[in-house]
Amino acid sequence: MDFPVTFDSQSTVPLHRQLYEEIRRAILSGRLPAGQRVPSTRSLSESLGISRATVTLAYDYLLDEGYLQSTLGSGTYVCRQLPDELLRPANTSKVSARKSKTTEEVKVKGLSRYGAFLKDRPWLDFSSEEPEIQFSFGRPDMTAFPLREWQQLVNHHLKERNLTLLDSPSNAGGYLPLRNAIAQHLAKARAVRCDAKQIIIVNGSQQAIDLVTRIFVDRGDFVGIEEPGYMGAKKAFEVQGAKLIGFPVDNQGLIVEKLRDPKLPPLKLLYVTPSHQFPTGVVLSLPRRLELIARARQTGTIIVEDDYDSEYRYAGRPVPALAGLEHGESVIYIGTFSKVLFPALRLGYLVVPNSMIELFTRAKWLCDRHSPLLDQQVLADFITSGHFERHVRKMRRLYEERRKNVIATLKLTFGNQIEILGDNAGINVLIRFLRPVDDKATMDAAREVGVGLARTANFYLQDAPGGEFLLNYGGLSTEEIEDGMRRLASAMVFAEGPA
Amino acid sequence: MDFPVTFDSQSTVPLHRQLYEEIRRAILSGRLPAGQRVPSTRSLSESLGISRATVTLAYDYLLDEGYLQSTLGSGTYVCRQLPDELLRPANTSKVSARKSKTTEEVKVKGLSRYGAFLKDRPWLDFSSEEPEIQFSFGRPDMTAFPLREWQQLVNHHLKERNLTLLDSPSNAGGYLPLRNAIAQHLAKARAVRCDAKQIIIVNGSQQAIDLVTRIFVDRGDFVGIEEPGYMGAKKAFEVQGAKLIGFPVDNQGLIVEKLRDPKLPPLKLLYVTPSHQFPTGVVLSLPRRLELIARARQTGTIIVEDDYDSEYRYAGRPVPALAGLEHGESVIYIGTFSKVLFPALRLGYLVVPNSMIELFTRAKWLCDRHSPLLDQQVLADFITSGHFERHVRKMRRLYEERRKNVIATLKLTFGNQIEILGDNAGINVLIRFLRPVDDKATMDAAREVGVGLARTANFYLQDAPGGEFLLNYGGLSTEEIEDGMRRLASAMVFAEGPA
Repeated sequence: MDFPVTFDSQSTVPLHRQLYEEIRRAILSGRLPAGQRVPSTRSLSESLGISRATVTLAYDYLLDEGYLQSTLGSGTYVCRQLPDELLRPANTSKVSARKSKTTEEVKVKGLSRYGAFLKDRPWLDFSSEEPEIQFSFGRPDMTAFPLREWQQLVNHHLKERNLTLLDSPSNAGGYLPLRNAIAQHLAKARAVRCDAKQIIIVNGSQQAIDLVTRIFVDRGDFVGIEEPGYMGAKKAFEVQGAKLIGFPVDNQGLIVEKLRDPKLPPLKLLYVTPSHQFPTGVVLSLPRRLELIARARQTGTIIVEDDYDSEYRYAGRPVPALAGLEHGESVIYIGTFSKVLFPALRLGYLVVPNSMIELFTRAKWLCDRHSPLLDQQVLADFITSGHFERHVRKMRRLYEERRKNVIATLKLTFGNQIEILGDNAGINVLIRFLRPVDDKATMDAAREVGVGLARTANFYLQDAPGGEFLLNYGGLSTEEIEDGMRRLASAMVFAEGPA
Repeated sequence: MDFPVTFDSQSTVPLHRQLYEEIRRAILSGRLPAGQRVPSTRSLSESLGISRATVTLAYDYLLDEGYLQSTLGSGTYVCRQLPDELLRPANTSKVSARKSKTTEEVKVKGLSRYGAFLKDRPWLDFSSEEPEIQFSFGRPDMTAFPLREWQQLVNHHLKERNLTLLDSPSNAGGYLPLRNAIAQHLAKARAVRCDAKQIIIVNGSQQAIDLVTRIFVDRGDFVGIEEPGYMGAKKAFEVQGAKLIGFPVDNQGLIVEKLRDPKLPPLKLLYVTPSHQFPTGVVLSLPRRLELIARARQTGTIIVEDDYDSEYRYAGRPVPALAGLEHGESVIYIGTFSKVLFPALRLGYLVVPNSMIELFTRAKWLCDRHSPLLDQQVLADFITSGHFERHVRKMRRLYEERRKNVIATLKLTFGNQIEILGDNAGINVLIRFLRPVDDKATMDAAREVGVGLARTANFYLQDAPGGEFLLNYGGLSTEEIEDGMRRLASAMVFAEGPA
């Protein structure tokens, strides 16, 4: 063998492993060509000045893994079946450094239409740098979360050493006590009466939307959405090839009479946020709710009701959910704990008609088997022990205060320059400037002064009006809100032209 | 108003809410028709003998939600816009009970091809009843999991009250310290050299397979799989419309030369389990690994390497992963913590070429935003603090012992009736009876005596040989294994015919 083996005597890596690595590298780099005979263990141990046992051990590994082969009576050889052309790439670090540079420029080939959509369409704009005052994201106030109580429940389960906690659950649809707790909560809070079995636990509302889409939408099918509407849903429908039809929203929510248009193609799904329309914040009126259900029954359209922050309504009792008004096959309800508890939890759920339970359970299994079990157990306890309701009540008061403050500060800062949209609900507010605004320049200027802002242009399929901004205040203190408004006022860039 | 309102004086529900519910039900059931004038608050409070404030509160809610409307000076009416035909379904419990009975028989309409596949094709057989001795599922031994150390790490994070723990992470691809920890582990244990950014954290290997399929496979595309192979992957490919081509496996793993067949259509993906083929348990030889990579490069096929239990190899050093041999664009590697830690955790990962990082990050976001953050943080600490490696070492010794015992017990129980397949690895073993077996009758009889068994028939695309059973012993004690074998021996049903 004509290559020097250098051992690192300081290394914690045993000698036999160092030798193994050296020979392996020599084979893979082509220094030891296929078919080459290697020295006997005795002669190599002598030439390297190491024990024969060490060499034997290294050879055993190499034989075992197929790098070497030995023929009875005629010695040991580098495996002949190692194709030459393969032995270059995986060797020196120089080569692989160059290689990984070029691969970054490589265009991915063979993408599906799903993959191509992700690659080629403009993606959602996530600024990686977090501004000082962030109005962009619908964060809850996490400082108010009862983390200690949560922790106690986690510890309770972990201490019990109940091993079913660690095991795959028998049902992909979720942990039954959690499904029971949610069913009871829904009956009380949302007038939704359902069996625990109808509840499918998923990883937040995004996965719920994804599952519904996969189960009902083929490429080219039509899906109705609100205009403006939630872009996370929009992307999820589009990526699967749905053709989107936007339905405008006024101060009573989605204009349901637009569904009567005889030229309208049949809709597979109609995605709505009736409790607190995203992003306008209006609540869908009861007559419209009822007409929506009637339409859906007639046309066979499935209404996807995303009830993402229904807990936060500050005037009157919550309007019953669509799923509470319709007990048939027309409504699939989506709930999430991301806004009420915390986003990193990743637990949400679907309420599906009886006929679809098995379907959704199978789809969930094929997607990712089931949602994490410990989180489900802790959440079930959190609800049944009353922490959940207490937390919601506390947050409702807190956000109501904050909302009043936001509205007051907006009026003080912008006076009659703006219109404030939406009902008395949720943890965000939409403002519309009455003078033409240069959205892009305003966003940039706001970012310069440390304010993150969401303009609504991305929420429209077409004809975004401009000059509309969504302010999420859930996670901001009074001081931050006031400071943020002042900064925003200083950053506004108005467009030339008629006011 | 000509309906009696009965109050429940024992109820904790406040009077105004009881009244609200009664009137709402009356409206929705049609007892109070649209346009009907309702009594004034004064007259209703008098007729019911309750305070006027209570009635006012109930009316306010009903007005607010649109059930009632009031015209200045002319009193309060049931909303006229409530379409009549809608007001029946959501009323008495009798009706909805009858309703939900019929809906169970309702055929779901409008399913996508994905949905129809889930509905119509035979689904995986999950027996809901857990037998005393369960050989069916690939469970790790959870009694050996260092739950206390895990708990300490959980508490450490929860005590810190670090709120980023609760918030959405800025990167859907996963928590960076976890990705770093995995990259380091892979370099050491699997000879896979990659940047942390190439690691995409997902909810176990099932989601990894699902994402790869969505990104690369359109309906009608060909996907190669091992025959026999893992049915969770097979279903995930099929449900998206892939056409499957099975490649037989011998005692060196997938027979790679079958890929040279000139009649073979181009494969989008080739799914392989080279470290420990599922279910045969053989290890793909090095020459075949290298040829596989060469083929993939030539044809543009992406190799999906599922390395689900590579940690458990009891003889020799692990063969380097395909992703450790190929540094280009041809291999996507999948790892999971379900087998090494515990299944309910739901954390796994992909290692993707640089060119695909952004694609997979977007797909993960659209599927479910990101994997739960606390679990990711705890797992990162579990790895970096050395617990992970210690646990793997401990389990490797434990399973090696267990495996020896399984093989010995099998030989003792079945002697030369069976052939034991697979290499010295993993936490399951495949046995093949040399006499024809009535699989179905054996499964039933085994279940009668409390033994859960997996026959391999479901693992084949075609021509399942029969008489083959997969025994998962990871989670069973020596006593259970011995007892299980005895019971199995008593339950065997052999078929008539030539031996």
